[in-house]
Amino acid sequence: MKNEIRGQVDGMVVPRYAGHSTFARLPRLEDVPGYDVAIVGVPFDTGVTYRPGARFGPAHIRQASRLLRPYNPALDVSPFARQQVVDAGDLPFNPFDIPTAMTQIEDGAYELIRDGGLLVTLGGDHTIAYPLLKAVNRVHGPVALVHFDAHLDTWDTYFDTPLTHGTPFRRAAEEGLFLSGHSAHVGIRGSLYSPNDLADDAELGFTIVHCMEFQRRTVDDVIDRLARAIGDAPLYVSIDIDVLDPSHAPATGTPEAGGMTSRELLAVLRGFDGLNLVGADIVEVAPAYDHAEITGVAAANVAYELVSLAARNRA
Amino acid sequence: MKNEIRGQVDGMVVPRYAGHSTFARLPRLEDVPGYDVAIVGVPFDTGVTYRPGARFGPAHIRQASRLLRPYNPALDVSPFARQQVVDAGDLPFNPFDIPTAMTQIEDGAYELIRDGGLLVTLGGDHTIAYPLLKAVNRVHGPVALVHFDAHLDTWDTYFDTPLTHGTPFRRAAEEGLFLSGHSAHVGIRGSLYSPNDLADDAELGFTIVHCMEFQRRTVDDVIDRLARAIGDAPLYVSIDIDVLDPSHAPATGTPEAGGMTSRELLAVLRGFDGLNLVGADIVEVAPAYDHAEITGVAAANVAYELVSLAARNRA
Amino acid sequence: MKNEIRGQVDGMVVPRYAGHSTFARLPRLEDVPGYDVAIVGVPFDTGVTYRPGARFGPAHIRQASRLLRPYNPALDVSPFARQQVVDAGDLPFNPFDIPTAMTQIEDGAYELIRDGGLLVTLGGDHTIAYPLLKAVNRVHGPVALVHFDAHLDTWDTYFDTPLTHGTPFRRAAEEGLFLSGHSAHVGIRGSLYSPNDLADDAELGFTIVHCMEFQRRTVDDVIDRLARAIGDAPLYVSIDIDVLDPSHAPATGTPEAGGMTSRELLAVLRGFDGLNLVGADIVEVAPAYDHAEITGVAAANVAYELVSLAARNRA
Amino acid sequence: MKNEIRGQVDGMVVPRYAGHSTFARLPRLEDVPGYDVAIVGVPFDTGVTYRPGARFGPAHIRQASRLLRPYNPALDVSPFARQQVVDAGDLPFNPFDIPTAMTQIEDGAYELIRDGGLLVTLGGDHTIAYPLLKAVNRVHGPVALVHFDAHLDTWDTYFDTPLTHGTPFRRAAEEGLFLSGHSAHVGIRGSLYSPNDLADDAELGFTIVHCMEFQRRTVDDVIDRLARAIGDAPLYVSIDIDVLDPSHAPATGTPEAGGMTSRELLAVLRGFDGLNLVGADIVEVAPAYDHAEITGVAAANVAYELVSLAARNRA
Amino acid sequence: MKNEIRGQVDGMVVPRYAGHSTFARLPRLEDVPGYDVAIVGVPFDTGVTYRPGARFGPAHIRQASRLLRPYNPALDVSPFARQQVVDAGDLPFNPFDIPTAMTQIEDGAYELIRDGGLLVTLGGDHTIAYPLLKAVNRVHGPVALVHFDAHLDTWDTYFDTPLTHGTPFRRAAEEGLFLSGHSAHVGIRGSLYSPNDLADDAELGFTIVHCMEFQRRTVDDVIDRLARAIGDAPLYVSIDIDVLDPSHAPATGTPEAGGMTSRELLAVLRGFDGLNLVGADIVEVAPAYDHAEITGVAAANVAYELVSLAARNRA
Amino acid sequence: MKNEIRGQVDGMVVPRYAGHSTFARLPRLEDVPGYDVAIVGVPFDTGVTYRPGARFGPAHIRQASRLLRPYNPALDVSPFARQQVVDAGDLPFNPFDIPTAMTQIEDGAYELIRDGGLLVTLGGDHTIAYPLLKAVNRVHGPVALVHFDAHLDTWDTYFDTPLTHGTPFRRAAEEGLFLSGHSAHVGIRGSLYSPNDLADDAELGFTIVHCMEFQRRTVDDVIDRLARAIGDAPLYVSIDIDVLDPSHAPATGTPEAGGMTSRELLAVLRGFDGLNLVGADIVEVAPAYDHAEITGVAAANVAYELVSLAARNRA
Repeated sequence: MKNEIRGQVDGMVVPRYAGHSTFARLPRLEDVPGYDVAIVGVPFDTGVTYRPGARFGPAHIRQASRLLRPYNPALDVSPFARQQVVDAGDLPFNPFDIPTAMTQIEDGAYELIRDGGLLVTLGGDHTIAYPLLKAVNRVHGPVALVHFDAHLDTWDTYFDTPLTHGTPFRRAAEEGLFLSGHSAHVGIRGSLYSPNDLADDAELGFTIVHCMEFQRRTVDDVIDRLARAIGDAPLYVSIDIDVLDPSHAPATGTPEAGGMTSRELLAVLRGFDGLNLVGADIVEVAPAYDHAEITGVAAANVAYELVSLAARNRA
Repeated sequence: MKNEIRGQVDGMVVPRYAGHSTFARLPRLEDVPGYDVAIVGVPFDTGVTYRPGARFGPAHIRQASRLLRPYNPALDVSPFARQQVVDAGDLPFNPFDIPTAMTQIEDGAYELIRDGGLLVTLGGDHTIAYPLLKAVNRVHGPVALVHFDAHLDTWDTYFDTPLTHGTPFRRAAEEGLFLSGHSAHVGIRGSLYSPNDLADDAELGFTIVHCMEFQRRTVDDVIDRLARAIGDAPLYVSIDIDVLDPSHAPATGTPEAGGMTSRELLAVLRGFDGLNLVGADIVEVAPAYDHAEITGVAAANVAYELVSLAARNRA
Repeated sequence: MKNEIRGQVDGMVVPRYAGHSTFARLPRLEDVPGYDVAIVGVPFDTGVTYRPGARFGPAHIRQASRLLRPYNPALDVSPFARQQVVDAGDLPFNPFDIPTAMTQIEDGAYELIRDGGLLVTLGGDHTIAYPLLKAVNRVHGPVALVHFDAHLDTWDTYFDTPLTHGTPFRRAAEEGLFLSGHSAHVGIRGSLYSPNDLADDAELGFTIVHCMEFQRRTVDDVIDRLARAIGDAPLYVSIDIDVLDPSHAPATGTPEAGGMTSRELLAVLRGFDGLNLVGADIVEVAPAYDHAEITGVAAANVAYELVSLAARNRA
Repeated sequence: MKNEIRGQVDGMVVPRYAGHSTFARLPRLEDVPGYDVAIVGVPFDTGVTYRPGARFGPAHIRQASRLLRPYNPALDVSPFARQQVVDAGDLPFNPFDIPTAMTQIEDGAYELIRDGGLLVTLGGDHTIAYPLLKAVNRVHGPVALVHFDAHLDTWDTYFDTPLTHGTPFRRAAEEGLFLSGHSAHVGIRGSLYSPNDLADDAELGFTIVHCMEFQRRTVDDVIDRLARAIGDAPLYVSIDIDVLDPSHAPATGTPEAGGMTSRELLAVLRGFDGLNLVGADIVEVAPAYDHAEITGVAAANVAYELVSLAARNRA
Repeated sequence: MKNEIRGQVDGMVVPRYAGHSTFARLPRLEDVPGYDVAIVGVPFDTGVTYRPGARFGPAHIRQASRLLRPYNPALDVSPFARQQVVDAGDLPFNPFDIPTAMTQIEDGAYELIRDGGLLVTLGGDHTIAYPLLKAVNRVHGPVALVHFDAHLDTWDTYFDTPLTHGTPFRRAAEEGLFLSGHSAHVGIRGSLYSPNDLADDAELGFTIVHCMEFQRRTVDDVIDRLARAIGDAPLYVSIDIDVLDPSHAPATGTPEAGGMTSRELLAVLRGFDGLNLVGADIVEVAPAYDHAEITGVAAANVAYELVSLAARNRA
Repeated sequence: MKNEIRGQVDGMVVPRYAGHSTFARLPRLEDVPGYDVAIVGVPFDTGVTYRPGARFGPAHIRQASRLLRPYNPALDVSPFARQQVVDAGDLPFNPFDIPTAMTQIEDGAYELIRDGGLLVTLGGDHTIAYPLLKAVNRVHGPVALVHFDAHLDTWDTYFDTPLTHGTPFRRAAEEGLFLSGHSAHVGIRGSLYSPNDLADDAELGFTIVHCMEFQRRTVDDVIDRLARAIGDAPLYVSIDIDVLDPSHAPATGTPEAGGMTSRELLAVLRGFDGLNLVGADIVEVAPAYDHAEITGVAAANVAYELVSLAARNRA
């Protein structure tokens, strides 16, 4: 179907700052007969515990994605030419009722992937990783989960609420949505509520790559360690933009000093080339705290690498 | 008890930018034996429908209130000398469960006023006006409500949710919390969902002072009209900062062009001198959208006028 | 055709911060069989003489327009229900060649109105008023032009260039695109290059409403004066957002102190109810200088009033 | 000497955003043989009591003044053609020793005016009005002082320090630097330390135009009242930019809600046409709090009106 | 006394954005009977030579510290549980008289540590390190000083003023307040006034870790070098936030390109585990230049690590 | 001529925030009889393809350069004492006609270097590198070009326009302005239009140091590689500030994630010590997107290192 693939609006004809604001100026889902990869927004931020505003994340990342061009030299692939990528818009949900929203998001995501499409989701807060993992499980079964984040996000409850942006992976663990022993947290740092946070998390079978390891080890060491853990399991990548240092991603809800650079993050993601990526999300971009779109640009590039990884697998 | 009143930290001894961040650098509730007026924060913003972030409103207004001085020449009163004013901190509540939070806020507010204290609340989003009115009713019975806002806030539900920042006064009307015929909306403007919005609101008995009237009438005209409506009923004033034009109050969730100036708002409030003020709130300050604290300064001054009105009544 | 009209995405089903970024979340031109009013972006800013950046104006105004609701109480009309309004996207053009771009913009605009549609254009810098007037003339002949601006925009050349954002109305005058004697500048203020600027402009037959008149006269006086000048001629309204004071519209290229408030501007526009509006533009929004989207919100509301005026005429 | 006058760099030859940053792109003092009006910066802010940063005021106002053009239509004068205006740079002073700095500023200012030049000073904080008045007195004797400000600036001491930005006019009164009975405060508003502030000020002989009068009276009323007070005395105008509302001038150290608009301020200044202006200052612009240069643009326009008034007197 | 220790307000009960703004939401000094560590603000910035505004540093760091949680996994310690930490508010001082302020700050600090408490100070500009070192010397005698900064801060005078933010360590050296041979500058970079600056500094006995060494050596190398210099002397750590790169700490008065990352700074500080920390300060946070609180978050985390080091020593 | 060299205004006499805004507060070209190095601004940004605004770059970098001091310890040189450095102001040009502007810029630059002066240019967008290279060639013949940039800037045309900020080095290659085999791109990253971009570029003879190499190799490796390529050819350095990561340089037109740190860039530049530098430019600083002047500070420091390299060669 490659001959029929519809890519980005041509930046040599329509300036990149012009035209509708789909991701990377790609066609909308309804503009093409089918798709291989769908970019979807989930502007849900009811689950946050500090700064809200990730509801404006999808629109902000789309605006920043205008800068993306068709060819990714780092992975030697044209991600929008080798596969049909579309912007599927935003999933609708009830912003005042978390359980209802979870079901709506899961169902909405499942509709998008049930026929084989791969989904890259733009959040929204990290709560949405839970329904997204549920949808992915309905198609692929349990996945190797690689979770980039300053925080573990495996707390139990917050104000007796089981689903917030600090708890999605505990809920996911309880339902067996990811493969213990093949999953990892990357970029963890910052203060915790208690030593138990680490102990409780340890029971869930994550490899932890603490952020300070990037200060003392090479990215290739980290990539090797992660690749060994993941193996050939279906891979889901969930990226909280706060894994980046606040200097690189000021626009997020719970910033932590001492984070990764965007160069480190891109290097690690490119190291996943050849792994069996089945889905991904980029969450916690809160645009009210951005300046000069730097967080948006970082998030858009992260999404671009993920779509490129998918394209590589279609070779 | 005037001799024992503890006012602001003296700006001639401790610079105004120094010292703990209570409102106007006043004592905390626990620092004095009793109080006449309590300033309380309610950093609840789960009810918003567009930009969130009013949860940071109380801290922001307190920081901006450092500029306030002891004497209000416009009303010829020293509001912190004629009555004991305290900062009661922030009410706790569950941010993930609106009905539970409503109860917690009502109860927390009631505790603060049950013994005769007058409460000036710093929001938080406008949802909190509902539990605040309930608390006030438990002490004073139904009140004349003067509601400054770009929006009516008398919609019925939003995503089937009965309590959001667009609905508090419909819920309040259903429970008879304010006096139909003695209440008013001031500053209304902007687009609506349908003509029914106005028709539905009309049944609730509000006088409406449309914002455009400030273009064509004098503030004294408006004051007269409001004073006649209010009469000598106990008065509750609820001020959504978006009643101000976005140029005066950029830091709010649902800005509408064509609003009031802060000079107009202060003039109207001072026109309430002599009325029977029993409580007030200032809501919808979302600091992530502020610059140079201008919204915070406006909100702090509004609170100061309200406290000054209370002081005048104690003469 | 009213039964088939497709309006905004319903804000009670999809939150206003979600969904694709068309103006007011209206359908795209290609989503409906026909239209009465088209909103189109022209992100051209090659003609500016000071701060550039209006190329990002259309995207910014669209994002701010998410706040618009279906019913305009000030004009008692539902502008998206009484007529089919669409977002026609952005016109393409060559950003490095002003004469070529002018032709492309004129032709693009003409295509959108040749079959009777009314066009509301989001700029872009003020240069585009010239090709837009040419397109409108091809359909309607010479128009009464009401030009809201701090500046006359009737200079001759700038660096020997005949078409920049300071010259469109001189070029238009030379070609007889507007009706001398039925046209007006509104909001003029600020320093000029020489007294000749006024003398040269005077030959073109504009009524001038200096901005300081809003300090000393009522808006109704101004409306009357303008309505008399316009008469029943076909009316084109061109609004440079810098007609507003920098406090209301910081995000513009050549700000001038002492401007109009957005409340005054909305009042004047509403005063055009009943006039024969045949087209309009809103230009010079340069988002890099905005904060909290206040300029975007003002521009979006101005566009909304213009679309509402068109709807009124369809009653 | 008019034929030899050197004005602004021509904006039709060198774009206004290019070239060295003198005020209005005028020549430096050392570039011409003599001058009628000197613009000088005094980047002193050691006297502030809240937000510092006015030390960056002169550079900021100069940058914003690039937008000024040669002809002022409001006063029908070309202020840089009828008189030689220069940028005299910034006066040097010791920033850590207020008394020493005061002497340096007075002497520096006196050097600039001793031969008949008129000085328009860009601050810096309001402390500098004291040495500037002293310098002006050495040439002109006591002056009618019109003081635009939210604050009285006639406090006695602050932390036992006699010269801060809250005290210049008390010191000036003690030395008889201005004419009691011919002087005025304009734009006064906001909270005070005590009723004594007003009583103490009253002894100094100022007419007070409270800011709220602009809500209820016309600018022409205010102008008449001021003109009567000033009479034909030599006039010194001292403008604290915080006389403007924070929406119009966010970049200042002690903002107060409910201020003047820039349109009102320009109108009042233009009303001084024909009075005997002998000097002026614009102070308290703190650029770290500005956005889109709106405060800078306001201040630059205020300076432009003052220079224009001087030019009118040279006719 | 561990059972009685009062820590942070529980983030699982009161959301972290709520409640009074003490550092890390810890109790105030007056709320508990005694303390082991006091956090104190010194909002003094009269000593700055470029951008002022560090007077707002303490309030800003406190606001950013709301994000801190009870357990520090990097040092495996619960810093607020193992020792009583309090917020002692801000020290009062005369902002217009540097020598007087120095005495007030020294005395205020001494009062807080004379009974054995350890002090972590939030500045304020770097001038305050001098009186703080004097206070520490009164309790501990001369200390090993590790000074993180882009600048040497050992200049002699500035405008003949002996105490400014560029001179505290020369004054300290003259009085023997730190141990020559056991002290270090870390992170030095940027332009100097002359080669003599280095020569003069060399006489004072500091080890210098130039910032560029972090580009070429590992943090563990740096830690080893510093630990050897410090030995078992009582250690005072003084951290100018401008040791971080402007990308990590934009909100400071004299930014220098090419600085440390916050990850590097945290790594070095954690390397001090086991050393005999007796006091510390974090200075030069000027909030008007911050965005998204990233400088505040960095400073709050730095303070957290310092308090954690103290807690480790109490094991 | 060293005794007569006029350096910066003395920061110990005039505070660095005071005085006219020449680069580093150096004399203007017209203030001294001759010069060795001229800093010149070229505020041209008509060639940009995404965010405009680099026209304000020269003024912004000059303002940020106030922080620079006379001695550069990293290169052990006093760059303003060993050679006469001047600020030559801004070159004039026609902003609406790219070919005309190119000629004006080339001629203006040639005038400044024809008598042996070395030019360091502050842009403006990258289009200007083409006329600057032409001017340099007229004096020095073809040069070794080291080009720091995220982008190759060797595209052919954009909208059929041969000279934009994406094409200067293709035009330069066509005219043999630089030495194939002795030239390099440093810092390349981000998406491309097609694999041909790299293939086309490869024909031009550049060494490419991809930005990701800084993640995996040392700066000294990179320096060695570049020094070998350059050899002893005359060296021209062209620095697009977007070679830095958006966290370090947000204020630029086409930001790309994963860039260099300013520390890395300074290290590489210092590694050019001893090479035969004959000219340099720093371009693409778009101040509207800066905050806290961090991009300006980085650019000013880059210029300072380049001037220091020139000074070293004069020893």
